[in-house]
Amino acid sequence: MGRVRIGILGCAGIAEKLIRGMLLLPEIQITALGSRSLTKAQGYAAKNHIPVDAKLYDSYDGVLDDPNVDAVYIPLPTGLHLEWVTKAAEKKKHVLLEKPVSHTIEELDAFLGVIDRNHLQFMDGTMFMHHPRLAQMHQVLHNRDVVGDIQEVIAMFITNLGVQPGWTSDIRGQPHLDGLGCLGDIGWYCTRFVLWAYDFQMPKTVTAHPGSKLSDTGVLTSCGASFEWPDGRMGTFRCSFLGDMVMKAICVGSKGTLEIDDFVIPRQEDVCSYRVKEAATWQDRSIGWGAREEVHQVMTSLPQEALMVQEFARLVGGILDGTGKPEPLWSTIARNTQILLNAVKASIESYCQPITL
Amino acid sequence: MGRVRIGILGCAGIAEKLIRGMLLLPEIQITALGSRSLTKAQGYAAKNHIPVDAKLYDSYDGVLDDPNVDAVYIPLPTGLHLEWVTKAAEKKKHVLLEKPVSHTIEELDAFLGVIDRNHLQFMDGTMFMHHPRLAQMHQVLHNRDVVGDIQEVIAMFITNLGVQPGWTSDIRGQPHLDGLGCLGDIGWYCTRFVLWAYDFQMPKTVTAHPGSKLSDTGVLTSCGASFEWPDGRMGTFRCSFLGDMVMKAICVGSKGTLEIDDFVIPRQEDVCSYRVKEAATWQDRSIGWGAREEVHQVMTSLPQEALMVQEFARLVGGILDGTGKPEPLWSTIARNTQILLNAVKASIESYCQPITL
Repeated sequence: MGRVRIGILGCAGIAEKLIRGMLLLPEIQITALGSRSLTKAQGYAAKNHIPVDAKLYDSYDGVLDDPNVDAVYIPLPTGLHLEWVTKAAEKKKHVLLEKPVSHTIEELDAFLGVIDRNHLQFMDGTMFMHHPRLAQMHQVLHNRDVVGDIQEVIAMFITNLGVQPGWTSDIRGQPHLDGLGCLGDIGWYCTRFVLWAYDFQMPKTVTAHPGSKLSDTGVLTSCGASFEWPDGRMGTFRCSFLGDMVMKAICVGSKGTLEIDDFVIPRQEDVCSYRVKEAATWQDRSIGWGAREEVHQVMTSLPQEALMVQEFARLVGGILDGTGKPEPLWSTIARNTQILLNAVKASIESYCQPITL
Repeated sequence: MGRVRIGILGCAGIAEKLIRGMLLLPEIQITALGSRSLTKAQGYAAKNHIPVDAKLYDSYDGVLDDPNVDAVYIPLPTGLHLEWVTKAAEKKKHVLLEKPVSHTIEELDAFLGVIDRNHLQFMDGTMFMHHPRLAQMHQVLHNRDVVGDIQEVIAMFITNLGVQPGWTSDIRGQPHLDGLGCLGDIGWYCTRFVLWAYDFQMPKTVTAHPGSKLSDTGVLTSCGASFEWPDGRMGTFRCSFLGDMVMKAICVGSKGTLEIDDFVIPRQEDVCSYRVKEAATWQDRSIGWGAREEVHQVMTSLPQEALMVQEFARLVGGILDGTGKPEPLWSTIARNTQILLNAVKASIESYCQPITL
């Protein structure tokens, strides 16, 4: 079959990164871009090297009505997802959707239902899931000789967004656009990582940590939570818009530990790493200790966002040429991630009571 | 003045490390060792190179009654601290006490009161406090140009003790001896580190994380908690006897981060390190990120346990020769650490309700 034809809704900052990734992929063709302002779309298309034969529209509807669009990438603010994913699915467009995918499970289920009824592929924009590093780490984590039984997974994503009084310069400071604040934006990644480490099994309880912070515009700027699985395994995360960059995840097993310092966005595109520590031993009289440690380097010729779009296009291409069916994994794990985020929010709003799932 | 003369109560494993440290110090003389078994004391003294002129007693009382003992080191299980610290203080012996110092604040205040009334020096056995690394890290943490405002401190100490059903081979598995389990043993260090990072100011609330675990002998084997300060700063810790070694602390400021991978016991005695990261910046389109990072190495000719005993002996020596007075810092921070541990325990026992201090 031919190239998968992608339309883009809006001129979001995050989309510039994905467009750059799409342009690396011969199996992708960007055929349309819609913005509420045609002038803005023109400037954005030129700046981002969108092919000159792509159609530019002064509305999102224009993209959805374009028969030369197979799938849409929707990087709109979360508050607009229900409307535009629903419309896109009704127009039979496959959907790659930025995270957090929704404000509520009800809205998410509403638009996933439309996706499903129209036999469309859905994928959320969690890029790190598609980096080859994650597949390698999965093998290590499930090698019981190395890590043993996973006991604790701890994820932290902190980045200083320069939050100031009246902070609305960023859509993440506007509750009607991105109502989950740091929880939706970067807590999403922490939550997804913990879920990933536990093979997407759901915890039994979600309990927010005390001390969550809100901006004066009413969005979360700092929070954290603990997840507890039925068999006692634990997940802990901290996320914040207020501190220096920390992007760390640690999986602690009974025998070994896997650690990664840039789990969401690798510092470098072409090479990144993770560390495995095992066989920790105390010296005599505990005067010191040691462990076998290895830094594993992972190379990739395509950045993770391109790999994400490539996988999305592979699935969409299969559906289009009749060789494949929609892969439900991506909507399932997006939904599970969203359930946990909403549970954290509910726990925050109930003074950190545990939320039973 | 002459050397400070130290007596040791019991033949504890942890004491072997401290004795080795004491033997490195010309200002210290080990003059007595007491055990319930004289044979055991003899074997232990020989094994640990305790000077042959030290008196060996078949009781702890023998050490306390010895006029050639200025100060005692008490590495007995926590459940025996009230009795033996009280007796030691009544016999005018200065006290270096292993941690956790107590099971309850009431017991702690009882024996600290006797220490105080007898104008004696008290110090708890938190060795890392005395490593020169900590003083260097303190300077970095309080350099607002580097770290900015501290927002979050996260400490983790996990070590696999091979907990099995009926686990009483270790005193830490016996609730009447070390009733706080992992919380008292290694949670002590996490709590102390967080307190240290916040200059020993006390948080306003202490909230245990869900999912604490108990051995079948009834001691905590895994737990964690969140501390919240009145100005919103946060502390988080995890401690466990069930997982591979993790001994990590991270102080996240608005501008920079300080990180240490072996905060309780440096891997090597003579050289260890900490890392400072600052000026994190995203690359264009967030395709990667970078930061200025520096690994600071710290050398020490004496191990941290020797430095601890040295400081204890310096304070005791000053009192003995009339040039100094008891330094209250050490009992104050031991008490503050104990208050937090007991609050974590109270929170665990009340289904993770926040405990207001």
